[in-house]
Amino acid sequence: MPETGSASSTTESDVSGATVSVADVLAAQARLRRYLPPTPMHYAERFGVWLKLENLQRTGSYKVRGALNALLAGRERGDDRPVIAASAGNHAQGLAWAAYRLGMQAITVMPHGAPATKIAGVAHWGATVRQHGSSFDEALAFAVELAEHNDYRFLSAFDEPDVIAGQGTIGIEISPHSPDVVIVPIGGGGLASGVALAMKSQGVRVVGAQIEGSDSMARAINGDLTVRDIPGTLADGVKVKVPGMLTRQLCARLLDDIVIVREAELRETLVRLALEEHIIAEGAGALALAAGRRVSGKHKCAVVSGGNIDATVLAQLLSEVRPRPPRKPRRRASDGEPPRLQSAPRDRNRTKSKTKPSSVAAPVPTPDIAVEESTW
Amino acid sequence: MPETGSASSTTESDVSGATVSVADVLAAQARLRRYLPPTPMHYAERFGVWLKLENLQRTGSYKVRGALNALLAGRERGDDRPVIAASAGNHAQGLAWAAYRLGMQAITVMPHGAPATKIAGVAHWGATVRQHGSSFDEALAFAVELAEHNDYRFLSAFDEPDVIAGQGTIGIEISPHSPDVVIVPIGGGGLASGVALAMKSQGVRVVGAQIEGSDSMARAINGDLTVRDIPGTLADGVKVKVPGMLTRQLCARLLDDIVIVREAELRETLVRLALEEHIIAEGAGALALAAGRRVSGKHKCAVVSGGNIDATVLAQLLSEVRPRPPRKPRRRASDGEPPRLQSAPRDRNRTKSKTKPSSVAAPVPTPDIAVEESTW
Repeated sequence: MPETGSASSTTESDVSGATVSVADVLAAQARLRRYLPPTPMHYAERFGVWLKLENLQRTGSYKVRGALNALLAGRERGDDRPVIAASAGNHAQGLAWAAYRLGMQAITVMPHGAPATKIAGVAHWGATVRQHGSSFDEALAFAVELAEHNDYRFLSAFDEPDVIAGQGTIGIEISPHSPDVVIVPIGGGGLASGVALAMKSQGVRVVGAQIEGSDSMARAINGDLTVRDIPGTLADGVKVKVPGMLTRQLCARLLDDIVIVREAELRETLVRLALEEHIIAEGAGALALAAGRRVSGKHKCAVVSGGNIDATVLAQLLSEVRPRPPRKPRRRASDGEPPRLQSAPRDRNRTKSKTKPSSVAAPVPTPDIAVEESTW
Repeated sequence: MPETGSASSTTESDVSGATVSVADVLAAQARLRRYLPPTPMHYAERFGVWLKLENLQRTGSYKVRGALNALLAGRERGDDRPVIAASAGNHAQGLAWAAYRLGMQAITVMPHGAPATKIAGVAHWGATVRQHGSSFDEALAFAVELAEHNDYRFLSAFDEPDVIAGQGTIGIEISPHSPDVVIVPIGGGGLASGVALAMKSQGVRVVGAQIEGSDSMARAINGDLTVRDIPGTLADGVKVKVPGMLTRQLCARLLDDIVIVREAELRETLVRLALEEHIIAEGAGALALAAGRRVSGKHKCAVVSGGNIDATVLAQLLSEVRPRPPRKPRRRASDGEPPRLQSAPRDRNRTKSKTKPSSVAAPVPTPDIAVEESTW
């Protein structure tokens, strides 16, 4: 967002001595390779968008990349203190898995109201769980206090070079697919910063996605640093009142745009992902795809950042949300007139009335062959 | 199943002039390559099983492979008549997509009661939909009648060499991952036959999975050819009263075993797949994984055959089924005593009571670090 971020362009990515560059992302890639196989890319045909499936990542979210990179990099520096983190859930799960995998010790502080599936995920991997406060920011303050008191290593969920570099490895994995734009959800900005570091050096556009009412990064980049209460949202993973210092600089410098998504768009996208693509995303995980319809590009890639959604929430969405049917595909080839069954007349109107255009599909709807009315 | 299939061993795979061999599978692979990129393999960590994700295949199921191969092979033989098929839903969708992709003409007959998502999927790709009868077998008879009357090419959903060879390409894609056993769901037997053709020549075991009450293939292999009514099941995709002639011979000759899965096991597996792995499978799609816990092997691979499940069915399962929590992972490494927070005593009992063992995970549960009680 070069046009709005000029105020910060002099500080580059160096804030309070912390720096992170594309070289750090490549180093993270080398560290993580033997622990985390690349996640799949999937072409969502009816959306016309490639998806990077981090919901199929270990622990169900990309956060394990940054946490594991931080533990491994810390070890290389001779730091093997127990690690403590505050998290809405996924960073805690990622840290728990990484600590389990390396035989290290982890403590996590999660706010009350964090999804049960995320809390269970942390406990599953043997990490200590503390619940404190009702928001991410309260959990954060408590974690910092515990770290100082007990000489634990405090690991930010996003505002930490090792973490940003780890999340950036997603960009390295996307690169061979040659997208022209990558869309990422933004909470604290760690994922967006890391992916932007990896992609921008290759001339690929990177666009962030935020949910309405929780757009602290977009406001911070525009110079509005007021701290606002965040209304309830399906995208609990990106409810961050105060974005990181380091990530704010990186996002201001590297992002091409930030799209604000409405809650209703997010709900419909999440349900369409489930029913049409058979992919379960959590709220924040469907955010980038929801923003995708307002991003131009021939080869768009949206990061499905995670899939940890509570069963009751998903069940309710599946019961309540009735997405519009996807637009009919464009005719690809023609071998003359379509066949007509002899028993019933072709009914164009019925077919057309079922085909409300959605803004993400092919531009010209031409149903090839009519749906038979007689037996429906 | 060589010990039970000896009666059929003289007929090999040649029934009424139709044959299919591993060479046909390789030819299918060459045909499909430019249309269908390989689907991902995903390691389901908490199940300890690799999954072949055919729910991420075009149209949400593997059936598009066989249908597309049949259309392409037919064209090579100079046969470009309109194609008609009967299907519980996925074969119809696969055929519709293939016909759309090649600019050919397709008519599908689906039984009343087929999932709405599958019917919509067929109509989406522009094929004609006829609904007839209340079971697959009634739809089948009607489709054969229409084919004879109109000189359409009738395409069996499973008992057809081109279709079996197409489904077998899944085996070619699994091969590089070197499983020692592959588990596949069985309805008519086309998928099992094709995958077995591809895998058995490499010395890999292939095990079929059927749902209780719909085990016509297992009974046919044992010489019981009685036609039984099939009770309602979540696995609508494998409700086939009469398995194929060709597939029966192939399955008798090539399968190592068939496991019968109980309905309750299937429901729990489907919900665990959604909540733990963020993967939506339809009933038949979760069948092979459900059978997996009763199949021995160090590197097991289950084919998730499809993901086309109705929103209301999935919502109800997510609301009703409460799977047992997964067993704790085995401790991987130890760096001495786990850390204990100073503010609260460690409570082993609470942790243990939440850890009911399930039979598919690591054998020794050793929770490393206790879950803090104080703030739950």
